[in-house]
Amino acid sequence: MKVGFLGLGNMGSAMARNLMKAGHALTVYNKTQSRTEELAALGATVARTPGLAAAGAEAIITMVADDAAVESVVLGPNAALDSLPAGAVHIAMSTMSVAIARRLTEAHRAKRQHFVSAPVFGRPDAAEAAKLVIAAAGPTDQIARCQPLFDAMGQKTFVVGEDPPAANVVKVTGNFLITVVIESLAESFALIRKTGVDPNKFLDVLIGSLFNAPIYRTYGAMVAADNFEPVGFRMALGMKDNRLALAAAEDAAVPLPLASLIRDRMLAATAMGMGEADWAAIARISFKEAGL
Amino acid sequence: MKVGFLGLGNMGSAMARNLMKAGHALTVYNKTQSRTEELAALGATVARTPGLAAAGAEAIITMVADDAAVESVVLGPNAALDSLPAGAVHIAMSTMSVAIARRLTEAHRAKRQHFVSAPVFGRPDAAEAAKLVIAAAGPTDQIARCQPLFDAMGQKTFVVGEDPPAANVVKVTGNFLITVVIESLAESFALIRKTGVDPNKFLDVLIGSLFNAPIYRTYGAMVAADNFEPVGFRMALGMKDNRLALAAAEDAAVPLPLASLIRDRMLAATAMGMGEADWAAIARISFKEAGL
Amino acid sequence: MKVGFLGLGNMGSAMARNLMKAGHALTVYNKTQSRTEELAALGATVARTPGLAAAGAEAIITMVADDAAVESVVLGPNAALDSLPAGAVHIAMSTMSVAIARRLTEAHRAKRQHFVSAPVFGRPDAAEAAKLVIAAAGPTDQIARCQPLFDAMGQKTFVVGEDPPAANVVKVTGNFLITVVIESLAESFALIRKTGVDPNKFLDVLIGSLFNAPIYRTYGAMVAADNFEPVGFRMALGMKDNRLALAAAEDAAVPLPLASLIRDRMLAATAMGMGEADWAAIARISFKEAGL
Amino acid sequence: MKVGFLGLGNMGSAMARNLMKAGHALTVYNKTQSRTEELAALGATVARTPGLAAAGAEAIITMVADDAAVESVVLGPNAALDSLPAGAVHIAMSTMSVAIARRLTEAHRAKRQHFVSAPVFGRPDAAEAAKLVIAAAGPTDQIARCQPLFDAMGQKTFVVGEDPPAANVVKVTGNFLITVVIESLAESFALIRKTGVDPNKFLDVLIGSLFNAPIYRTYGAMVAADNFEPVGFRMALGMKDNRLALAAAEDAAVPLPLASLIRDRMLAATAMGMGEADWAAIARISFKEAGL
Repeated sequence: MKVGFLGLGNMGSAMARNLMKAGHALTVYNKTQSRTEELAALGATVARTPGLAAAGAEAIITMVADDAAVESVVLGPNAALDSLPAGAVHIAMSTMSVAIARRLTEAHRAKRQHFVSAPVFGRPDAAEAAKLVIAAAGPTDQIARCQPLFDAMGQKTFVVGEDPPAANVVKVTGNFLITVVIESLAESFALIRKTGVDPNKFLDVLIGSLFNAPIYRTYGAMVAADNFEPVGFRMALGMKDNRLALAAAEDAAVPLPLASLIRDRMLAATAMGMGEADWAAIARISFKEAGL
Repeated sequence: MKVGFLGLGNMGSAMARNLMKAGHALTVYNKTQSRTEELAALGATVARTPGLAAAGAEAIITMVADDAAVESVVLGPNAALDSLPAGAVHIAMSTMSVAIARRLTEAHRAKRQHFVSAPVFGRPDAAEAAKLVIAAAGPTDQIARCQPLFDAMGQKTFVVGEDPPAANVVKVTGNFLITVVIESLAESFALIRKTGVDPNKFLDVLIGSLFNAPIYRTYGAMVAADNFEPVGFRMALGMKDNRLALAAAEDAAVPLPLASLIRDRMLAATAMGMGEADWAAIARISFKEAGL
Repeated sequence: MKVGFLGLGNMGSAMARNLMKAGHALTVYNKTQSRTEELAALGATVARTPGLAAAGAEAIITMVADDAAVESVVLGPNAALDSLPAGAVHIAMSTMSVAIARRLTEAHRAKRQHFVSAPVFGRPDAAEAAKLVIAAAGPTDQIARCQPLFDAMGQKTFVVGEDPPAANVVKVTGNFLITVVIESLAESFALIRKTGVDPNKFLDVLIGSLFNAPIYRTYGAMVAADNFEPVGFRMALGMKDNRLALAAAEDAAVPLPLASLIRDRMLAATAMGMGEADWAAIARISFKEAGL
Repeated sequence: MKVGFLGLGNMGSAMARNLMKAGHALTVYNKTQSRTEELAALGATVARTPGLAAAGAEAIITMVADDAAVESVVLGPNAALDSLPAGAVHIAMSTMSVAIARRLTEAHRAKRQHFVSAPVFGRPDAAEAAKLVIAAAGPTDQIARCQPLFDAMGQKTFVVGEDPPAANVVKVTGNFLITVVIESLAESFALIRKTGVDPNKFLDVLIGSLFNAPIYRTYGAMVAADNFEPVGFRMALGMKDNRLALAAAEDAAVPLPLASLIRDRMLAATAMGMGEADWAAIARISFKEAGL
């Protein structure tokens, strides 16, 4: 398929490479152009503006930093909305607000373009290995059309609805659940350590029984070892995701006391100098409060 | 092995039956004696007092309601401590406080008896199927000695330390983690439902990816369906477990903000008439607060 | 003094009247022009745009709904910034974000105008009675120059610093403290009522001893009586103020767990149909959770 | 009146002296007998057991450390219950649980003795100056009978009901409100300081306007100065009071989220080495979390 790919960060680059491996023809755009070189060397066409990447494409994929970046590459001047052909589809795969997903739904409809929201779960290593988990929402036929692209980038696609913003609700809620796992492990290991129990024995019980899920294995190991290096997902990005969950919930008038608590943990971590640490380092707040 | 079994509630009865199936000779005691009849029919000897169940036993297992019951059957008059032979072992398998585990450790040592704390994870159906998960702590040789008994009742035994109360810390912390999972699912599904996303689609994403663990499957299904029948574990017992976690943490001077939050949810649920409901019904507080 | 007054809501109208009583010459502006009639009848000049209200003024006072309104009347097209004479002073008295106070500080400096931030504490009845409490920040000489205006509107002016946004920090923090008083009374009276103690007896103890302050008298009476009519300050405005406190704190990386808790209470109250009620009606969440 | 006074700590000694100044005849008891010497020098009779202090008394006053101490001096062997004459009155003035107040109500009734619960608000300096605030509950005629004693020790007596435990509910709820004031000041001053506003200016606004109450003056000064010396009320005692509030609320099935939050602050403060500091030092947790 002829695909315009916008946004070549750690995640986007890996995803674009996997699309090329699967035989798709890519035109790539990135704000910092040097990041396009690697893809160009693999045969991708480089576009100077997001609009040029969208011109003539059957599909564009956006994988950019935040709402502002989505606005800039899709809705701004020389951006994708104006040049994407009618009938083509925009697949928004980065984490963004439910509110902007709704705006994009309207904007593409007005242009007779299609829109699928398909945010991903997974860190850069999963992107690299084409093992992302994709939550997609949009018109059924359009999702079917995008399936070969999803298959090239992920291990599994969950279709969560026909209204694109549903996928973003799923994504921000899923991320919220991850932060709760981290905080619950933090408090648990504070108690385990302070009472003299071996953290690794406790971790064995968890992942060997009721909590035998990837998320407990990944974060359990970090928290048990009190070691948050290397940084997989920065605290500042974690705060952004927390804000997305709180914003979606505020719009819907839904209190999320756990998200509020985690917001305060992340703020404290930031104030105490952990703004560049992995977001799991909020565990250190629990450790400090326990006098460890 | 010659085993005295004290406490024949839903859990205890199933565990005792599995021990008999494995060929162990049981003398059983229960406060309400009618509950012993079923075991007697299978060949167990019935003891009129906990002391008589312990007399001449190689091991006794306690599986009773709470700290007070443990005190009564082990430390009270006509209780096990005085009649259990020196060199025999007491295996405490019910959920109890870290504090009483410490008292029992001392009491048995003074009598030259052995003590292993081995609380279990699992509901009555897991007990029935000999699929309990056991967290055991105590002297290495004594745990080895008890292993055939554990194998008859559980699917897996985790040895978490040599100091018996360590197992109770692990148990109350594990239960705390379960309550956090419930509360996090409650808040998540409140948001999912209020924004019009299909709860089952969201559940599919969770258990099909990062949260693919028994605990999310069990409680995710209940919360997604807003159906907490039949009652597997009553709110009142949940509050007891929550108190055990908070007490262990208070003794160790460890704040557990999530446990505090869940305590307040359980109190609200109780005040609102859900004291006899399954503890997962705390989700209804989140649903109410979201105006659902 | 020749004063341009922008914003004639319940608060602004009363303040403007008091300035006229004190002999100041007012040119008034309001988005909905009908609200200017009353002032015109008292001798005020009516301006059709905020810019016209500022032209030739020695001072302008803004008393508008929110940040967007401040932006519109000061920084927008036909707005005050462009027509206010150099050397004149803008006194911003409505509740607004610390961030916009900072923007205004810069904008006026660039135009050689002066800027004083002077938000007020007090409900419409206090504005009417010229009993507002004013927290002012700005250059010392400018505050001295504004003092006759403050004296015409308020009972007391506190100078809190020379940097204008300081006054907004004081205001949003003060409002935060008020919401904590409400929530603490809510929880207290839930306990008092549920244990069968007479709420009025408890209220007598509070306001007759350690808590003998206006804020406990005002809200204590409402919460004790479980009566939140008439509406003095709407929940929606309370949420706005709560957001201002959380935003100022987030910018400064300061966790405010109490503000987070109150945010969730206000969201729940909104979801449960109390969006138009007095903000003190969050007490009803505590009452519901206690099963009252 | 012929009064037996049990418990001569800092509070009790001052109260006993004030009773003697007012002409009452005291027989005093204290566990550590050396503390009775000062009162003996002023003319008090010293009793070796609580029972001897109660024998022949018209009224006994208990002012001891906690529930266990109340049990010991009233309900234990050689204690007051057995020797206090029928028709005499026990006035319990120390802070104790609602549960034990209920037990005492029953115990005295069975002995045809009277019981008035009358806990006090105020630190040792207020006790010294006979400026305590007293919340009394019990039979109307008995409170009238005790009034001269109250007048000798306090500045004001609030009668809060006829059922003695009501006074303890009022006391623990009042103390809960004090802790909320401290925590709210802590968070506020964290924000004030981090944004560069002068804490004393903010304090002036508070106590000069809406928050003009003794409690804000006392704790506002401590928190603004980040100075918690000298220790007026120890963290460990604060935790005890917090537990009393949470226990009363749990018995009544009333969630108190603010009390839960403060419990966690006090636990963190204790874990971080502030167990012997003034309870207002929980403010330091907010300061640390803000990176101050």
